[in-house]
Amino acid sequence: MGIIVQKFGGTSVADTDKIKNVASAVIKEKNNGNDVIVVVSAMGHTTDYLVKMANEISSKPNSREMDMLLATGEQVSIALLTMAIQAQGYAAVSMNAMQVGIITECVHSKARIVDIKTNKLKEHLNKGEIVVVAGFQGVTPDGEITTLGRGGSDTSAVAIAGALHADRCDIYTDVEGVYTTDPRIVPKATKLKEISYEEMLELAYVGANVLHPRSVETAKQYQVPLRVRSTFKLDDLGTYIIGVDEMEINRPVAGVASDLSQVRIVITDVPDRPGNAAKIFELLSEADISVDMIIQSYGRNDDTNDIAFTVGKVDYDKTMEIVKKAIKEINATNVLVDDDIAKVSIVGAGMVDRPGIAASMFKALAEAGINIKMISTSEIKISCLVERDQSNEAIKALHSAFHLDSKEEAVVMGDLPNL
Amino acid sequence: MGIIVQKFGGTSVADTDKIKNVASAVIKEKNNGNDVIVVVSAMGHTTDYLVKMANEISSKPNSREMDMLLATGEQVSIALLTMAIQAQGYAAVSMNAMQVGIITECVHSKARIVDIKTNKLKEHLNKGEIVVVAGFQGVTPDGEITTLGRGGSDTSAVAIAGALHADRCDIYTDVEGVYTTDPRIVPKATKLKEISYEEMLELAYVGANVLHPRSVETAKQYQVPLRVRSTFKLDDLGTYIIGVDEMEINRPVAGVASDLSQVRIVITDVPDRPGNAAKIFELLSEADISVDMIIQSYGRNDDTNDIAFTVGKVDYDKTMEIVKKAIKEINATNVLVDDDIAKVSIVGAGMVDRPGIAASMFKALAEAGINIKMISTSEIKISCLVERDQSNEAIKALHSAFHLDSKEEAVVMGDLPNL
Repeated sequence: MGIIVQKFGGTSVADTDKIKNVASAVIKEKNNGNDVIVVVSAMGHTTDYLVKMANEISSKPNSREMDMLLATGEQVSIALLTMAIQAQGYAAVSMNAMQVGIITECVHSKARIVDIKTNKLKEHLNKGEIVVVAGFQGVTPDGEITTLGRGGSDTSAVAIAGALHADRCDIYTDVEGVYTTDPRIVPKATKLKEISYEEMLELAYVGANVLHPRSVETAKQYQVPLRVRSTFKLDDLGTYIIGVDEMEINRPVAGVASDLSQVRIVITDVPDRPGNAAKIFELLSEADISVDMIIQSYGRNDDTNDIAFTVGKVDYDKTMEIVKKAIKEINATNVLVDDDIAKVSIVGAGMVDRPGIAASMFKALAEAGINIKMISTSEIKISCLVERDQSNEAIKALHSAFHLDSKEEAVVMGDLPNL
Repeated sequence: MGIIVQKFGGTSVADTDKIKNVASAVIKEKNNGNDVIVVVSAMGHTTDYLVKMANEISSKPNSREMDMLLATGEQVSIALLTMAIQAQGYAAVSMNAMQVGIITECVHSKARIVDIKTNKLKEHLNKGEIVVVAGFQGVTPDGEITTLGRGGSDTSAVAIAGALHADRCDIYTDVEGVYTTDPRIVPKATKLKEISYEEMLELAYVGANVLHPRSVETAKQYQVPLRVRSTFKLDDLGTYIIGVDEMEINRPVAGVASDLSQVRIVITDVPDRPGNAAKIFELLSEADISVDMIIQSYGRNDDTNDIAFTVGKVDYDKTMEIVKKAIKEINATNVLVDDDIAKVSIVGAGMVDRPGIAASMFKALAEAGINIKMISTSEIKISCLVERDQSNEAIKALHSAFHLDSKEEAVVMGDLPNL
């Protein structure tokens, strides 16, 4: 008996039949004796359709008006889902972001939530009503409609759960949970029973698309227990995303992931003077470019270094412009580019106490004949840059080396988490 | 130089190309040097589509949720139209009912506007912006979303024009104006240059569907000059609907209309005692049934009367239930029903001073061989009940008798006003 926040994505409410199924899942939770708040996204391809119309009208639609337009998608879903719950004989009420008071900064298309008013939500819960809230949208203190950007509905759900000190936030989606790696690459990938916020964040940042990092960060901040499960397979418990202290299992590696979206840039023969490296990364930072892995090779005889780093391919053009200017200032001679790379990472909260993990990773890759171009580590992650065409092989080798292979093959349904 | 409120209906914004055309019409008015507020309905068949989904989910969808659902239609239109205006280089901003403050009673699906906040509208107008407002929707003081029912967007536009003391409210639609009668019946129907609020109301109530009576009443109340014109023929000035004092022309009859939606009920042999008639109409009134024409035949030798009246066909079953009970109480013997009737009316503000109009009407019908079953009159209207299959003939005869025939045949486009 407590408060449960459920979130259903666009594929879960894609048509009226699916909306009826969602209503059943909501009522099931209500019948468990819980107060239930449901957060929903826009139906299936509604957002694409609205964006298409906007693009027919303007090549560069105003972002305020875009938010006004897109916010209608979720308002349709909440009304229909509420009707579906009522049709099954339960009291329910829909609320858009303005009615709840999901207050955001005044930034359009990617606003951050700054406050969630709970008084109206509680009023309805106290009356025994199931409250159906529009995800993805917010409102500024001035009454302007905003949207939260990618993964926005997840963030809405987690933030509401945090504000209400909910017992759990269940993210219903079209996959069954979080896997040890992409089952399309490793058919024996295992669905994780639980994973820590930190592990999930590392996996999310290296390419998983089950949950947007912002929602996981919000869950971590408010210590909201999260769960990812399938709308279409309600007998499966899914994956719990919880604090590391609450985890039952202490395994060194939770998952293996690859990221093919980066490009490596090497600046050669950088004169070994203090501040040269700083100069380059300062300029990149000013241009809002996130640099991921960095290696500086020290100690050559000729008093020069090579500086290598990776950036997202989307930032490549901007990065090269800056780098070309910078090398003149610091008297470096040359820039090499390598976009034939993959970043392969192992992630695990148990890594901290086990010093042998990195060595095991390098050994496993070596045995598979895979050369490591760069290495970077965090407390719970080790990443290696490898040749792009060796990426899948690397994942398979690591998945097996860290005993993540399941006895059964994963049943692939929907878009699988691209860990 | 003043404030002009423009209203565009669903067919005027049915697709993105039409929305671009509407943007041009809006900008044309802005370029005349006016402050412009645009009220829009949902795109074409959006409302039908939303209702269809609701019906798939529930046979009796909750009216609060229905309003939540339907209000999205107008929000899509305002965002897209605003983008289209901006794309042509003009400053514009969209506002839904909640943002404007279009305050209604807390009644769903047919709320009445009780107040319109003008501060935010004026703020935007003062910045030189074109303000695009969602029609059809309102908000209660508690923040609940309501809708205004049939003709709601017209009412929104007129009420905003009234609140801002606008110089004019232009209703853009798919017909060119208000005609002397339905051009599908009389091809030589004339488009009226102007018509008074009162005449328009009488014509609206007897079957015209150009403007909903509520919007005309609101315009009359606030003395807002209204104009009906075609979105697709901007060189045509349309029809002005104004106060009778401001009208240039003083013609006895403005238009001829028929109403096929009524049924006649005759209670025979009602004992001639005070209060018997009152009894029947009191019961009908308590049941919220509007009675239109009433005739009581007096002075028969046997001290009984016949009471005849008409009600809308939609109220027929409820009416008969009440009447059958009532005749027992008042000792009347019999009830006759006649649904083969049409009410043909002539409407004209100039009627008041010209006593011969009624006589001319009866003579014209008689000459056409049409028998009159009942007559009712108001200050500016005379209605005759005739056989249903003589309705069109009656209209033609009256249209000609009162010199309303135009030299040219009306160009029928879109749904013509069903006067």
